[in-house]
Amino acid sequence: MSKTKKFILNENEMPTHWYNIMADMPNKPLPPLHPGTKQPVGPQDLAPLFPMELIKQEVSMEQYIEIPEEVRDIYRLWRPSPLYRAFQLEKALDTPAKIYYKYEGGSYAGSHKPNTAIPQAYYNYKEGVKKITTETGAGQWGSALSYACHHFGMQCQVYMVKISYEQKPYRKFLMNTWGAEVIASPSMLTNAGRQILAKDPNSPGSLGIAISEAVEVAAMNDDTKYSLGSVLNHVLLHQTIIGEESLKQMAMAGDYPDVVLGCFGGGSNFAGISFSFIRENLLKGKKTRIVAVEPASCPKLTRGVFQYDFGDTVGMTPLIPMYTLGHDWIPASIHAGGLRYHGAGAIVSQLLKDKLIEAVSVRQLKTFEAGVLFARTEGIIPAPESSHAIAAAIHEANLAKEEGKQRTILINLSGNGIIDLPSFDKYLNGGLEDYVISDDEIAASTSKLEKLI
Amino acid sequence: MSKTKKFILNENEMPTHWYNIMADMPNKPLPPLHPGTKQPVGPQDLAPLFPMELIKQEVSMEQYIEIPEEVRDIYRLWRPSPLYRAFQLEKALDTPAKIYYKYEGGSYAGSHKPNTAIPQAYYNYKEGVKKITTETGAGQWGSALSYACHHFGMQCQVYMVKISYEQKPYRKFLMNTWGAEVIASPSMLTNAGRQILAKDPNSPGSLGIAISEAVEVAAMNDDTKYSLGSVLNHVLLHQTIIGEESLKQMAMAGDYPDVVLGCFGGGSNFAGISFSFIRENLLKGKKTRIVAVEPASCPKLTRGVFQYDFGDTVGMTPLIPMYTLGHDWIPASIHAGGLRYHGAGAIVSQLLKDKLIEAVSVRQLKTFEAGVLFARTEGIIPAPESSHAIAAAIHEANLAKEEGKQRTILINLSGNGIIDLPSFDKYLNGGLEDYVISDDEIAASTSKLEKLI
Repeated sequence: MSKTKKFILNENEMPTHWYNIMADMPNKPLPPLHPGTKQPVGPQDLAPLFPMELIKQEVSMEQYIEIPEEVRDIYRLWRPSPLYRAFQLEKALDTPAKIYYKYEGGSYAGSHKPNTAIPQAYYNYKEGVKKITTETGAGQWGSALSYACHHFGMQCQVYMVKISYEQKPYRKFLMNTWGAEVIASPSMLTNAGRQILAKDPNSPGSLGIAISEAVEVAAMNDDTKYSLGSVLNHVLLHQTIIGEESLKQMAMAGDYPDVVLGCFGGGSNFAGISFSFIRENLLKGKKTRIVAVEPASCPKLTRGVFQYDFGDTVGMTPLIPMYTLGHDWIPASIHAGGLRYHGAGAIVSQLLKDKLIEAVSVRQLKTFEAGVLFARTEGIIPAPESSHAIAAAIHEANLAKEEGKQRTILINLSGNGIIDLPSFDKYLNGGLEDYVISDDEIAASTSKLEKLI
Repeated sequence: MSKTKKFILNENEMPTHWYNIMADMPNKPLPPLHPGTKQPVGPQDLAPLFPMELIKQEVSMEQYIEIPEEVRDIYRLWRPSPLYRAFQLEKALDTPAKIYYKYEGGSYAGSHKPNTAIPQAYYNYKEGVKKITTETGAGQWGSALSYACHHFGMQCQVYMVKISYEQKPYRKFLMNTWGAEVIASPSMLTNAGRQILAKDPNSPGSLGIAISEAVEVAAMNDDTKYSLGSVLNHVLLHQTIIGEESLKQMAMAGDYPDVVLGCFGGGSNFAGISFSFIRENLLKGKKTRIVAVEPASCPKLTRGVFQYDFGDTVGMTPLIPMYTLGHDWIPASIHAGGLRYHGAGAIVSQLLKDKLIEAVSVRQLKTFEAGVLFARTEGIIPAPESSHAIAAAIHEANLAKEEGKQRTILINLSGNGIIDLPSFDKYLNGGLEDYVISDDEIAASTSKLEKLI
């Protein structure tokens, strides 16, 4: 007799509220500071860039925030998302551990990003915004926002890092198919872009430059706002629907996780899977270990400093209290592009400081080894980002085997890796490497930060 | 109050049997003939290529054939597949029609092909086969079989048309990730390949050549068999799980289709969605229209002849009674590579001859227009093949609007188009064209066929 592989909620069981962990944190994050005055930023500072409803969510202390019906209606194109028991992977590992994965790769964009793209587009639309600008690296976030904007009848302008624009065209095609305008950054459309190109006409671009261009366009136009795909509190809030669903699905499975794992870039998919389980730890005395998994080549949580730092490379955004490697530190060119970010959001940083979560790092080759094993057992090609969580889960399952102990593991499979197949090809042909970061390199970057904490 | 978008069966509601339409056909298909003797082929003729259980299924007259538990266990990685109501598309069309789509693009390979890859691999494995060879064009079928073989511990050798091998690398990467050996065809590994290369060292290859190479390797090695992804009766049989699920899901929706549409290449996804509904027409007096949708550039059903013809280009396979454009007719290079096949399988051809199904054709630009509208409304990027069914559904919905009548439409969305995004890019930039086939061209090709009917 077969055991159930997939745990699927009906549409009417989909959560109606996001969970706001700010309400339950024993220590709240320090406030963001204005980059010029170094004073806490107020709503008026953010109003040129974000609609008021998102600014309210950014500072809300309400425990639950209702998901608007219009948002839930679009969520239902792919949500509730399935929770799987990874029987085939368990068998290959010959482990006593049980491995569950929440699968967010079935969304229209192939990742968890639509969970926040849809509500961000919705709140902008409700406040009369006509156009949203954003930046994107490899294009996961830009593609999620493109469909969201199209759905609500708004224009979407995506500044895509030029080197990715040229080398990774599939997500550009995806954004175009959904009607978005995709611009290679640096561009001649903005002062920021023109300044960069004046210095270096062949600049390959960077996420920092693309943010500068997108923010500039939003700040200069009344009917245009800016949108960000991770880091900020309201973005993490929207992702909590992942964990709220997972709690119900683990109950369907008659199980509860001993450890919850999510890969870590800016924090959004990690927050999505974990915040609900942190709540259960805080309020109901559960003892689940919550583990963020970052690349060894971008180790802000395991080797960074806790300090105020900018969210972008050039220093235009508010200063955020974060674990960081320094805002002008350039991560190595690993294939998990979504994890190449110098800092962690304010909430997650505070949780780590308070030891309510743990962090581990994994080297690139180990993540691809894990990704290939996952593909060959469970069938799904995992995103290189998500493969970090898989690698950590395999490590936990192997420990369980060594110790001869049962252990229930839950990971967030935040995206599929179909568009990343060239990276798998490179790995299988021996063309990938590990990147080792020296303590000196980290110290040199972080020592430049102003000591505001 | 929102209406349900997705109709999802529990794992324990997944059908336990495939439906064999041969049992209920008023006129059975004529038998396949040996290419040399022109006499009906027997099991012994097919034994070098296929395991006995599949040969039995090829000629079975049993109405239902049980799906082995080992196959169902793997099916449950992605099955039951969801049935969606396309509310967003209906709204964009402003139609009174209701449009449902069965979505097979959520499988590990992104299409319906795993429905037959898994059982084919299973029956080979059960009979001690160590290695399976097959051909693939763009790679949909080859990738489905690669994971299936890996799962059952068999080698998989895929002869991939060289021009696709070079120009469309993503599915090659996919096959490699699942552990298959992918060989650009023509190759130096076979007599067939060497002969072609002796004449033309720069041959771009063709599906016909790739079939010859795969068949040769299987025929020459005792522990190796050959596998085909469409056309044959047992392949269509395995796909009927699509329709069996859809019947249950339409009942969940409290609805029943007036018309069922599937795109048409060799017939497998079309058979999958439609055979169960043909049964309801034949046995229960239902009046659902069943429509195959083919490319206007490859119009075997709407403009071909009904005659015995070879399944491959070079004439090595048995002669099959089929609607055909002639086995050496080369379809234009449309982007729906899966529909570029000169003939239709024996069962579907007989059904069309007996007017139990209809056929229509759609031009390429119309299919991409439909695909983009679908992507911008329902979010899913449809495969160019599946976009044919969408185009026909939109036509039906527009007719319903003109007539001011209700109409319930069901289509098979047989695959997603993520790996086909460059085709969408080309369409959006005006780089695609329609292909018009003249009557003379068709007559010239089909007049060469031996008149055996």
